[in-house]
Amino acid sequence: MPISYHRFAGSSLDRLAALSDGVFAVAMTLLVLDLKPPSVPKRAQSPIWSGGHGGSEHALVHGLLHNVAPRLLPYAMSFLTLGIFWVGQQTQLESFTRSTRALTWIHLTFLLSVTLMPFSTGLLAQDTTYRVAMAVYWLNLLGLGVLLHISLHYADRAGLIRAETTAEMRAALKRRIVVYQVLYALATLTCLINTYLAIGLLVALQLNSVIAPRIGILDRA
Amino acid sequence: MPISYHRFAGSSLDRLAALSDGVFAVAMTLLVLDLKPPSVPKRAQSPIWSGGHGGSEHALVHGLLHNVAPRLLPYAMSFLTLGIFWVGQQTQLESFTRSTRALTWIHLTFLLSVTLMPFSTGLLAQDTTYRVAMAVYWLNLLGLGVLLHISLHYADRAGLIRAETTAEMRAALKRRIVVYQVLYALATLTCLINTYLAIGLLVALQLNSVIAPRIGILDRA
Amino acid sequence: MPISYHRFAGSSLDRLAALSDGVFAVAMTLLVLDLKPPSVPKRAQSPIWSGGHGGSEHALVHGLLHNVAPRLLPYAMSFLTLGIFWVGQQTQLESFTRSTRALTWIHLTFLLSVTLMPFSTGLLAQDTTYRVAMAVYWLNLLGLGVLLHISLHYADRAGLIRAETTAEMRAALKRRIVVYQVLYALATLTCLINTYLAIGLLVALQLNSVIAPRIGILDRA
Amino acid sequence: MPISYHRFAGSSLDRLAALSDGVFAVAMTLLVLDLKPPSVPKRAQSPIWSGGHGGSEHALVHGLLHNVAPRLLPYAMSFLTLGIFWVGQQTQLESFTRSTRALTWIHLTFLLSVTLMPFSTGLLAQDTTYRVAMAVYWLNLLGLGVLLHISLHYADRAGLIRAETTAEMRAALKRRIVVYQVLYALATLTCLINTYLAIGLLVALQLNSVIAPRIGILDRA
Repeated sequence: MPISYHRFAGSSLDRLAALSDGVFAVAMTLLVLDLKPPSVPKRAQSPIWSGGHGGSEHALVHGLLHNVAPRLLPYAMSFLTLGIFWVGQQTQLESFTRSTRALTWIHLTFLLSVTLMPFSTGLLAQDTTYRVAMAVYWLNLLGLGVLLHISLHYADRAGLIRAETTAEMRAALKRRIVVYQVLYALATLTCLINTYLAIGLLVALQLNSVIAPRIGILDRA
Repeated sequence: MPISYHRFAGSSLDRLAALSDGVFAVAMTLLVLDLKPPSVPKRAQSPIWSGGHGGSEHALVHGLLHNVAPRLLPYAMSFLTLGIFWVGQQTQLESFTRSTRALTWIHLTFLLSVTLMPFSTGLLAQDTTYRVAMAVYWLNLLGLGVLLHISLHYADRAGLIRAETTAEMRAALKRRIVVYQVLYALATLTCLINTYLAIGLLVALQLNSVIAPRIGILDRA
Repeated sequence: MPISYHRFAGSSLDRLAALSDGVFAVAMTLLVLDLKPPSVPKRAQSPIWSGGHGGSEHALVHGLLHNVAPRLLPYAMSFLTLGIFWVGQQTQLESFTRSTRALTWIHLTFLLSVTLMPFSTGLLAQDTTYRVAMAVYWLNLLGLGVLLHISLHYADRAGLIRAETTAEMRAALKRRIVVYQVLYALATLTCLINTYLAIGLLVALQLNSVIAPRIGILDRA
Repeated sequence: MPISYHRFAGSSLDRLAALSDGVFAVAMTLLVLDLKPPSVPKRAQSPIWSGGHGGSEHALVHGLLHNVAPRLLPYAMSFLTLGIFWVGQQTQLESFTRSTRALTWIHLTFLLSVTLMPFSTGLLAQDTTYRVAMAVYWLNLLGLGVLLHISLHYADRAGLIRAETTAEMRAALKRRIVVYQVLYALATLTCLINTYLAIGLLVALQLNSVIAPRIGILDRA
């Protein structure tokens, strides 16, 4: 009986980590492509030595405040999101002994969600008042969380987690994902009242996740 | 007699793996550039506190369903394709003892096919009913498979494969490529009847390749 | 009491280095997207064998000189900047024993500044005479420096620096950042007189930082 | 006397290799952005089950042949070029014992030339009959070669080359760069007769560099 491809394919954690770093790096940098310098009429007349003395300086300021600034919030939120999930995935991969083909595909699907982040962000940045855009963004967040949870669950059952990562630590990792996903969902629901409120709450949650002040349940999560 | 450059150039498998991860990561993320948020008229009137109550919410839903959704299928199919060939290439590189300049160039040509994937996908996503676009996409798939087969064949003859990779495993790797390429070709041929049928069959094949249910010849391949 | 996620998350320096290399690589290459070939009317008439004999050759030269050349200066300046901060960050990471979640987030914020560089550069390249664009560019430079300084300061206090990196070397690293940031600020201030002067001084500072001639305080910094 | 930053900064070959792989990967994949699917009128009428039976299939073929095909030659040539110089740089880095800040900056300047390749290629692909575009492309090629030569020369004098890399091998590496640069210059000069001839000769040279048939001086180079 011939040996199956599935027995030995896709077992390198190093390659998976390297591909992930690449996808995250590109997705993080592509976010900025959404920030376009406001087009200001070129001051053709101004001689090189005049060095910018003129009246249209505030046209650029206006363009920055009205066209670029509103996009900064969704952009920063998405960078935070990608950073949070990059740290989360890194922590998981560090705790695995090796990969399998199934685990590799769980993470490839996770990376698919990562590549969708610039799209979801662009949709939200275009006009922050659309609740549909908010829902799409939340689905993307949900996908990232669900896939990391599946990865942990699978690796746990398949015996791919290092002995140093105690059952307590595994529980901490899973609990953290669930608690934050519930909070993300609740924050997103407030867009029924106001989308700015929803985005504000999401950013607050992410900053809490990053800065991690010691308060109650969120600390322990 | 002077020593030849070809004797010692390009022998690092690590660098080849790193370049490959980079090319795959960029190609996977570039696919998403094809997904553009549908442009919806900015609701200039809506004050910040109104939070998106309005009538044009369904205009965005319409844009998403008619302009974005049809592109999701070719996009997901291409992400699956890139994932499959990334796993395939990784499995090969892991089984080599070292690289040579010739092997490096086989893989650079393979990476050239990888970089063409966003183009082929864009062509297909533009209008899925064109059989010419279908043929271009299939040529791209064929190129990926043929180059991986050449790589394996060359490495085998040049004695670059680890002892742990038995003759049986090498045969499994080659068989898998051939079987899937034949099935890809047959699936593509059904575009003579209907292009949606062809794409559906290709996606089914790729999902089978990923999820790998235990059925007949495909299991053993 | 459950163990906290913050105790063991994000401690891999290798992953942080890999993500950083990815972000820098993409940001450096995206800069060039700003350089667009000037559009010249296609010479439809010219037969393949005429090989370009014609009168419109100087139209392309004109386009290159007027549309591309002025963008080369901000582009080269930004590539230098990214190179300088890449070397600076690499030197720091090499001197750390390991990372912590806090240190990882300091560097993620640093990478956020890196991804903003193509935007700031594009703003400046669009019309070099705007002092507002100059100020935005300087803020970006400042962010990069401040975050590297915070990283060093934090790692020092948290005991994450290798024993081989003496107190003297740590002081040298910090001094260098401060001296250059002061000089960057002074150079930027000259844009009140003339923006070209400011850019010229910034480029001179960066070339000094790269080529490092042995002159006075800058040498010791 | 305070220690100088230049003594210990930028000495990691691994980080330099990783950044280089990233820049090459992005540049290689960005080349393809120049290949745009020809826009064909969407066949709005065709029902989903008709599967592409219609008369406009040849409009897409026409678009591919007239708008995409002419760009394939410069695109493939640039991919070959990037591959050749990636192999060349990899071979050098593998033969170094460590990096210094100066060597790192030589390679950063080399990477700057790499990032310019998509621009030079786009310029040439726009209209292949312009000799000015040809000259810009050649300058880019020249920059890549000159910087690799400087790198080798510097590393040799600074004693950074491994003992295993004999003087004979170093000479082989340098000779190869010089011989090919002379041939590139001669090939480019033929654009005075016809630009297609020049491109054809460049591609022939690159294929020879890759496939390396055993003929005369080129073999020994």
